[in-house]
Formats: sequence, C-alpha cells, structure tokens
Amino acid sequence: MKQVPLKNVRLAEGYLSPYYRLVRDVMIPYQWEAMNDRVEGAVKSHCIDNIRIAAGQREGEFYGFLFQDSDVAKWLEALAYCVQNGDAAEFEAIADGVIQTIKSAQQPDGYFNTYIQLTAPERKLTNLYEAHELYCLGHLAEAAAAYTQATGKRELLDIVLRFIDLIDSRFGSGEGKLRGYPGHQEIELALARLYEVTNDGKLLRLGKYFLDERGREPHFFTQEWEKRGGLSEWTQRSEKLPADYTYNQAHLPVREQDKVVGHAVRAMYMYAAMAEIGRLSGDESLLDACRVLFEDLRRQTYVTGGIGSTNHGEAFTFAYDLPNETNYSETCASIGLVFFMHAMLKTEVDAACADLMENALYNTVLAGVSTDGQSYFYVNPMETVPEANERNPARTHAKSRRQKWNACACCPPNISRLLASIGKYLYSVDGDTVYVHLYAASDVTADLKGGPFAFGVRTGYPLDGAVMLTAGSDVTDNATLAFRVPGWCGDASFKLNGKNADVSVRKGYAYITHKFVKGDVLELSFDMRPRVVYANPGLRAAAGKACIRRGPLVYCLEERDNIPNLHSLSLDASAEIREKPGSVGGMDCVVLTAGGFAEESADDSVYTHIPKKRAARELVFVPYHLWGNGGDLGEMIVWVRER
Amino acid sequence: MKQVPLKNVRLAEGYLSPYYRLVRDVMIPYQWEAMNDRVEGAVKSHCIDNIRIAAGQREGEFYGFLFQDSDVAKWLEALAYCVQNGDAAEFEAIADGVIQTIKSAQQPDGYFNTYIQLTAPERKLTNLYEAHELYCLGHLAEAAAAYTQATGKRELLDIVLRFIDLIDSRFGSGEGKLRGYPGHQEIELALARLYEVTNDGKLLRLGKYFLDERGREPHFFTQEWEKRGGLSEWTQRSEKLPADYTYNQAHLPVREQDKVVGHAVRAMYMYAAMAEIGRLSGDESLLDACRVLFEDLRRQTYVTGGIGSTNHGEAFTFAYDLPNETNYSETCASIGLVFFMHAMLKTEVDAACADLMENALYNTVLAGVSTDGQSYFYVNPMETVPEANERNPARTHAKSRRQKWNACACCPPNISRLLASIGKYLYSVDGDTVYVHLYAASDVTADLKGGPFAFGVRTGYPLDGAVMLTAGSDVTDNATLAFRVPGWCGDASFKLNGKNADVSVRKGYAYITHKFVKGDVLELSFDMRPRVVYANPGLRAAAGKACIRRGPLVYCLEERDNIPNLHSLSLDASAEIREKPGSVGGMDCVVLTAGGFAEESADDSVYTHIPKKRAARELVFVPYHLWGNGGDLGEMIVWVRER
Repeated sequence: MKQVPLKNVRLAEGYLSPYYRLVRDVMIPYQWEAMNDRVEGAVKSHCIDNIRIAAGQREGEFYGFLFQDSDVAKWLEALAYCVQNGDAAEFEAIADGVIQTIKSAQQPDGYFNTYIQLTAPERKLTNLYEAHELYCLGHLAEAAAAYTQATGKRELLDIVLRFIDLIDSRFGSGEGKLRGYPGHQEIELALARLYEVTNDGKLLRLGKYFLDERGREPHFFTQEWEKRGGLSEWTQRSEKLPADYTYNQAHLPVREQDKVVGHAVRAMYMYAAMAEIGRLSGDESLLDACRVLFEDLRRQTYVTGGIGSTNHGEAFTFAYDLPNETNYSETCASIGLVFFMHAMLKTEVDAACADLMENALYNTVLAGVSTDGQSYFYVNPMETVPEANERNPARTHAKSRRQKWNACACCPPNISRLLASIGKYLYSVDGDTVYVHLYAASDVTADLKGGPFAFGVRTGYPLDGAVMLTAGSDVTDNATLAFRVPGWCGDASFKLNGKNADVSVRKGYAYITHKFVKGDVLELSFDMRPRVVYANPGLRAAAGKACIRRGPLVYCLEERDNIPNLHSLSLDASAEIREKPGSVGGMDCVVLTAGGFAEESADDSVYTHIPKKRAARELVFVPYHLWGNGGDLGEMIVWVRER
Repeated sequence: MKQVPLKNVRLAEGYLSPYYRLVRDVMIPYQWEAMNDRVEGAVKSHCIDNIRIAAGQREGEFYGFLFQDSDVAKWLEALAYCVQNGDAAEFEAIADGVIQTIKSAQQPDGYFNTYIQLTAPERKLTNLYEAHELYCLGHLAEAAAAYTQATGKRELLDIVLRFIDLIDSRFGSGEGKLRGYPGHQEIELALARLYEVTNDGKLLRLGKYFLDERGREPHFFTQEWEKRGGLSEWTQRSEKLPADYTYNQAHLPVREQDKVVGHAVRAMYMYAAMAEIGRLSGDESLLDACRVLFEDLRRQTYVTGGIGSTNHGEAFTFAYDLPNETNYSETCASIGLVFFMHAMLKTEVDAACADLMENALYNTVLAGVSTDGQSYFYVNPMETVPEANERNPARTHAKSRRQKWNACACCPPNISRLLASIGKYLYSVDGDTVYVHLYAASDVTADLKGGPFAFGVRTGYPLDGAVMLTAGSDVTDNATLAFRVPGWCGDASFKLNGKNADVSVRKGYAYITHKFVKGDVLELSFDMRPRVVYANPGLRAAAGKACIRRGPLVYCLEERDNIPNLHSLSLDASAEIREKPGSVGGMDCVVLTAGGFAEESADDSVYTHIPKKRAARELVFVPYHLWGNGGDLGEMIVWVRER
C-alpha cells in the first residue's frame, strides 16, 4: 500500500480549499513576519535571527526555547508543499535564503542547532534527554524531504544528510557509539519520510535503531544524566534524576508499551514512526504494538479528536479520564494523531483509523487556527469561561481566544504544514485498488498496477453529504474504489452511473469494482443529519451530557449565540435538531438549533432548597472548529446537559 | 457581647462528645507520638526534636517545614483545653516538659524559632514575608493563653510575652521600628486572644498595628525583599519580586479589601483577627470590611463549608468558581472559617454567620479526622475517583484516604485544638440574653447581668432535632434565651414548660424571654427531614446536580454503599428520601436512601449515538464528614446529577 503522493492530488473548490489558500496566502507570509518579529502585539520569536546570529551574519544573543529552530523548519516544510502545488513561488527565494543561512551556520562536522551553538557549544549532543537537537534535526529533515521533492534542489537535503551522518557516527549499537536516542521523538518519523525520498537504507536503519533502543536498560537517559552531573538544560542547575521516563515514552521498550502515556505530541510522533518504520522495515512487532496502543488511545481521545487530558506534562492520564475544564488537547498533538492514523492506514485499511484521523483534522486541528489565519490555539479546551480561564490556575493554560503567536510556537507552523499537505492524506493505492480515506474536492491521478487512473472528486463535504467521483481516464482492467464509510454515518448510498452500485463493505470501507471508463460517475451520499453523541459511562466528564455532531464536525455552544453561563443550559433530549446555512468568521457552515432549557435562580442564595426555574430556550450550535472567531470573548462548551 | 468561656461549658453525651473524647483519648496521645516520630508508616515530623536540638539537649539538624514549631504549639493548645476541662492531667507533665525545653531554647532576647535558630540564625526577623516566625509565635501565644487559663501556670506565657516584647521593639510605627507585618497572618488573632487573658493593652495595640499596616505603600514586603537581595527562604536562592501580594492578602490595606482572595487559611485568620480586634478596639471600619468580605466569602464556600477552590496557593479564585474535581478545601481553612464566623457572632447576632460556622464544623472540620482519630484529611475533595486522584496531576493534591500524618502537618493538631475547645463556640451572653449558636448537649453557667444562670442542654442533634434545655438555677429577673434557627430548617417549634413559647425572631435567632426558675424546661424541635439542596446557576460545577442535606449534615455517595463509577448514578428528583439508623466507622449516623438511576453502556464504544441504558437503582447516602472511614479505597461524590 502506498499513499497517492501530494503531486498527484490537487485540491478543488470545497471545504478544505479555503484552508489551503489560508496557508498559502496568509499563514506562510504571516508566520514569516512573526518569526522575524514584525507582527505587532505578537510575542517575540527571534527564530530567524537565531540562525542569522549563528551564521555570523548578525550580532546578538540566542533567544527563545531550546527548540526554537524547529519553528523555521516546519515553516519551510509548509512552504515546500505550497511550492509543490505550484504555488508560493515568491517564497521559494526566501526559503533559499534561509537555507543558505542555515548552511553558513552549520558547523564543519555537520552539526546545526542555534541554541547549543550560541549558548553552550561545549554541551553539544551531551543531553539528548532535554536538548531537542535530534528533534530539531528531525523537523529540518522533514522540511528537506518536502523541499527536495517540490523543487529538486538538494541544498537543504545535503545539510540534513551531513548532520544525520554526524548523528549516525555518534549514536547506535555499533562499537564506540553511544546508545542514545532523543528525549523528544521526531527524528524517527523524519528518517522514515526521508528514506521514502532518498531510498537510502541507512536512514531507515537509524530510525529503527532509535525505536529499538528506546527504554532499554541500562537506561541511556540515566547514564547521560550521571555523565552531565544532573545538569538540566532547562534550569541550568543540577536536578534530580527523573522518577521515571513515562513523560518521554521511554519507561519501557516501545514494543512492551501497551498504554498511551506521557507527553501527547511525543507519543504521537513516536507511534507514527513505529507504524511507518514497522511497515517500511517489515517489522510486524512494531505494528502490533501500534495496534495495542491504538485501542487505549481511543479511550483517551476527546470527542473533538483532542488528546492530552492534563496540562501537567501536556500529557495523557488514563482511559476515560477526559475532564472538560482542565484538558490540554494541544493542536500539535492532534496533528500528531493525524500522522499516526495516516501511518496506520498505510498498513491496514480500517475505517476506525480514518475516522479518528478525520475527527482530529476537522475538529481540533482546524480549531487551531482562526479563520483569518492570524491567530492560533495551542490548547483546545472543551469548555471555556473567560473569567475561570483567567483566574483559576487549574485552567489558565487554556485561553478563551486565539493568540497571535506563542512563546512556544510549535503549533502555528505545524498547522501550516499539515494543511498545506492535506492532499497526502486523502488517498492510497494497493494494486488496482484506490482507497478514499477522506472526502475532499480534488483532482487525482492514482498509479494503479494496471496504469495511471485519473479521477475527479467534487463535494461540499462536510457541508453536505454528496460526493461525486468522475473517472478522468479509462482503466485497462477492473479497478476497485474503496470508500470509507464514516463511523458517524447512519446511512450511505453508492450509485454507479445512476444505478445502485454493487458494494461490499469490509472494516468500514465500501468496495466497488468496475472497469472504469472516462466519464463514469460514482455518486456517494452520506447521511449528514445532525446526531446526538453520548459518551461511555466511564467518561465521567460527559455524564448526563450530550454533544451534537453533524458529519465529522462536532458542534459547540458559544455565549454569543446563546446566553452567558452556558452551564445553565440543557438540551431537550427529544428535540429535533434543525439545520440552517450560516457563516462563522467568514467560513460557510451549517448552524444547528435545537430546543432546550435555561435555568434561572429561584432566589439569590448560593444554596437553596428551591429547585431552579427552567424556561424553554432554543440552543444555537456552531462547529467546534469555528468557535472563538469574531465577536467578544465569551464562553464555549461542547458537552451540554441533556434533559 | 462575650462568649461563655470554656470553663463554664461542659459537654454532655451527644453528637460532639465522642469527638471530644477522641481528641482527649486518642488524638492528643497519637499526635504526641507522631511529633516524636514513633508512629509506624507516618511521615517524619521531627518537630519535638527540633526544639530539643535548639535547646541543646540533643545533637542533630533541623528537619521539616520552616513553620514546623507551630505543630507543637497547636498540640499544646489542644492539650490545654482538655486540662481546662479537667481531663488529660497525665499530659500536663509532658506539656510542662515541652515548655521547659522551649524555655531552654529561647534566646536571651526572647527569640524562639527552631528553623531560624538551627539553620539561619543570621536571618532572624529579616524575612517576615516567608519565614513564619510571627506565625509560629502566634500559635505559641494561643497555646500560652489556653495553658495559663487551664493551669494557672505562667511559664509558657512568660516565654511568649518576652518574644512579643522583642517583636514590639522591632516592628511598629514608632521611630526606629520597621513597619513590618507577617507573611502568614496568625499573630494578630493570637494577640487578641492573649489580650483577653492578660488585659494588657499593648497586645491589642500590636495586633491592630499589624492589621493597620498591612498592604500599605511603600510596601513592606517589597522593601524587605530588596534588603535581602531577593533571597527566598523556600528555595534558598534569589527569587523575583512577587507579582503581587494577593496570596497573603497584603495587596491592599485590609479595610480596602472587598474580595476574598489568596491563601484561604491566611485569609480566615486575618478576617477573624479583624473581627476580634475591631470589636475589642471599637474600630467599626474593621468590622465593616469583615461584613463586605463575608458576602463574597459565602459565594466562594462549598456546600460542605470547604473553602479554597484551587490547590495553586491553596487559594480562593472568584465567586461561584467552585469546581468539584480540583478544589482544595483545606481542613485548616474551614477551622479558620469557624474562627471568623465565631468572631463575627461576638459583634452581630446573625444566623447566617452561625450557619456557616456550623456548616464548616460539622462537614469539613469533622471530615478532617477519621473516626479512630489516627488519620487526617488535609484536602477535602467534593468528589474522589481513586485512579484520578492518583494519576491526574490536577487532582493528586486530594487523597482518596486520610493520611497518618502530613509532611506539612498543620491540620491534625488544628483539628484537635478546635474540637477540644468546641464548648467555646456554643454560647455567648449579652446583658441578660444568652445566645445559643450551636446545639450540643452540655451543662452551662452563663454570667448574666443579673447573675449566673445555670442550664443544661440535652440533645442528640443533629441525629435528631429535639433539643431540651432545663434551667438549673433561678434568674433574678427576666432573662432571654436566643436560639439560632438554622437556615436549613424549614420548621422549628419552641415550647416552654410544655406550652408553645412566645417567640420573636430576628436575623435568624428566636428570642424567648422569661423569668426562669430552676426546672423550667424549654423544648425545641427542628425539622430534620432530609432536603435536596440546589446551587445557584452561577455555580457551574453543580449545574444539573443536587446534594442532600439533613440538618447541618451534607451527605455524599460512597462507592462501597453504591456501585463503582458514581458519576453514572443520578437522583430521581421526585424520590422520597428515607432515613434509617446506621453507623459509619463506629459513629452513629442516619443513613439516607433515595430512588435514582444507574446508567450503563449501550455498547462498548467510547462515543455512540445510542443513549445510555438507565435502570432504577436505590442510592445510599452517608454524612460527608464520615466518608472514607473503613472499607476499601473508593469513589465519593457530593453533588449528584438529578433527573
């Protein structure tokens, strides 16, 4: 199974195309300005300057987090996808300039990391646990893979390969090497992706080594900690040995891990790498571990596709522990979830994976950016009360409005690179079968065993549930189209040239085999009627509550469409949910209304024996991913009480 | 108005007397053992050893928090109350020994604080913001007041007065003095109490000075911080100037404070001092500030009388922000709430104050100790799920079971001193009126204007609502008994010698005037039928939920009486609540049952469109203060969903 590569998928006008344009026309330029500290009111980035300083082009000091370089790398990667799509040519020159600066800053041995070079050159590669050097290299490697594919230029690729050579000479199981691996996983996934571009087996072996070694005893992080006398890169003081390495998913060898734990982004990047490297290297044991972890992950995922139940360590807790007020649900973590599910789908066609990928994408990832592309959520709360998010310290990590930039700005360019490359996630091919994982208007050429097969998809999905696929070329022999039937969909129909198609469904995919000729039309129809969603009783935070989903979109209540104190509202369980066309922040959407109730005080007491007064009130729901766009700061809730 | 002193109130057999006996027979000896590190499985205290080391009686190093001395002081105070009650004579010798050791440790200038003496003598009184020297002195002063009253011995009093003289010579508004005041309020309240024992006006003036000066600009804490170069006593490093002094209620002059903020125990001790010193010094402006703060406090108090919505700073947040999962509700804070309300009641007779005092006492304070007296809650959660309290960092501050001792052991001896002196809180006298604030079986002598009036109260309250008061002596002229009618009570009746009494009710107190003769009987009857309690709609955490109260006791559901996953249960709004006699952890109580529902999964999904299955199920409620006594570790909730 292989994905249909990005160059063979061109988005057409639909629900996702405005987001692609947002990346290309707004986010790429805006983020360039932000990284150059030219956005008024945005927090300082300095990440471009860090590179210039390291290259000797400018005087100054390093500023920012020790992984500040990775922002530039992710931005370069996003830009590369736009270039590959034939867009953003004017940014190619800027990218080339940045790459030249990186080249100037790179040390003779291949090393490049502005934090270490500018603040602590003597500590180069001595603290993999904390210093994020391999993490930053991983992001640069992903950028290099994309940029090379897009432009054919090898300069960034060469920079990266030289650094990887240095790493490969220092770390590994060979004699004289340190048995190290990164504190923040990322390079493993990057090596897999780079391997797919270069076919250099050394890259795959190095990525697999990092996974194989991780969590083994004697523990590398402990040995490294002893060597550096406990010196922490974060506090610049000697610190105690960590109690365990759960935070970094290095508490156990990766194949022995069966619970989703620790820092959510680290976990997702690692699991994605396990699935990719497992597939590429034919190591079934890595894939088996992924399957086990996936089952636990589903029980630790919010209905919005958010993950990370606690801000402490931006981490998972345990199955069904999904509090609404104190959750983290970092945008980057859901991006990582898309990576993981996409990697799983390359091995096994299971709609459960595609459902989760779609859920994370359409709800939490899209929520991460404002409709004007210029502000971002790092944390994606399940409910906000502005005063509580300002004044209750358990909740201050979640903001009631998107920020222009973050001190830790991992999310904004991560959103850019995912949305710019969203075409990658739609289709894959196995022999003469084309799998359609996500529905987005697009023009595609799939390389089947029997030769290329061109087709076009037109749909307003998820605004409506009609998807039309038109064959743009003949196939030489029978071909199969396998369409995901979304898990949320109660009723789906498939017509081939106006007649009910012959369909067999396996693991949530509907298979239609036909000798397609140009002009053949497949019409799919998914029932998009809004539905009430209930959580498992184990999910305490949703006890007595419901939320509404329409297609893949989870809905929420906003104060500006309803009333202050959204907690006083409840949904009438028997109410009909009505649809009406609407728009939030300039994006078209379907607004939902349903009967419900508002509660008012019987008196002024804090506590009383008199039941609250209840009045009928229509509730207005909008897609979660659009909340907080425009209007005043207000409350938002996803799970609403049901009566 | 004056309280009926402890020596004139003797508890008789009733609901509180077992708790008094628990202090006398178990907690005083147990806590002595714990402070001497002789309780197996309890965390280290070392607080007695610290004093011995400071006195030169033993080699060793200081161990513990910088306020470790205060545990000993509170324990001495508790012991003094038992001695005053004619009990615990065998502990008087131990107390005298401890006092002698303190005397040996006291420095020639009167200073005494083992943390400073043993770890940093050069920093004596240089960091009032953090070092807790005045806090520890305050607790020792309260112990001295109690011990002197109980025994007539002056040794501890002299120790304390010498230290106070030192403080008075260093701090104040006089020339050459530092305009300092403590980072943790306590000495203000202690000075007021000591003043009432010694009648030395200097004590009252010093206490009032600390209140008057607090929060004024230029800010003493900032000046002090500059002088010590930012050196923190906690981290032993130079630390940044705090953003503000809200945590210590020193952000504004105390009379300008109108919102309840910061560390809850500090707040309560300060407000109590403001009320006491306002009354004793005739400063109405302090009392006015208390009245304003009381109104905000009511909206930041849990239904259980717990306060402190967040563990971050063990602090208040804002009105109605009372989350169930992440609350703090420290036992000591509710003890402070009892002090504050008791102080208010000395000035104005308002049942709202006595209701809150009773609520804090019967629910959170009593919950602070196990029925065997040997384990303690520091934090009093509104709901526990053992796995979440172990694995979700936002909740790990709350424990699912009481602890044998705490590293910061402020609560255990604080509970002891409150329960040992509970007689102080029952009655007060103004002219020829006796106010009955709390109902507890007791034998009392009240000094009325017209002479002493003896009476006995017999009641099982709050097991039942019948209270019988029998005059034990004649009064020379008319006397008035003013009985609080609890706010939770829907129906109360008053009979004098078998006939309906002539009653007038003002601010929640029922006044009965009569020329009592020995043998007169007043029979009170309070309707104790269990009632459902609802919260104001602003209180988000209780939206759609109810709790049950019977008399002053708030009830809860425990897993062991019900089922795991208490969140899956809901209460039938129309259900009759039935009472049955029961016992938890050996304490008699009324167990309540009511109809309700349990929800089960429709399927195995995390999220589903199928509503949960609901089955009728009887719910079993026990008094909140008895939860977690005996049996396995399990879940508990106070607010339960109502259908």
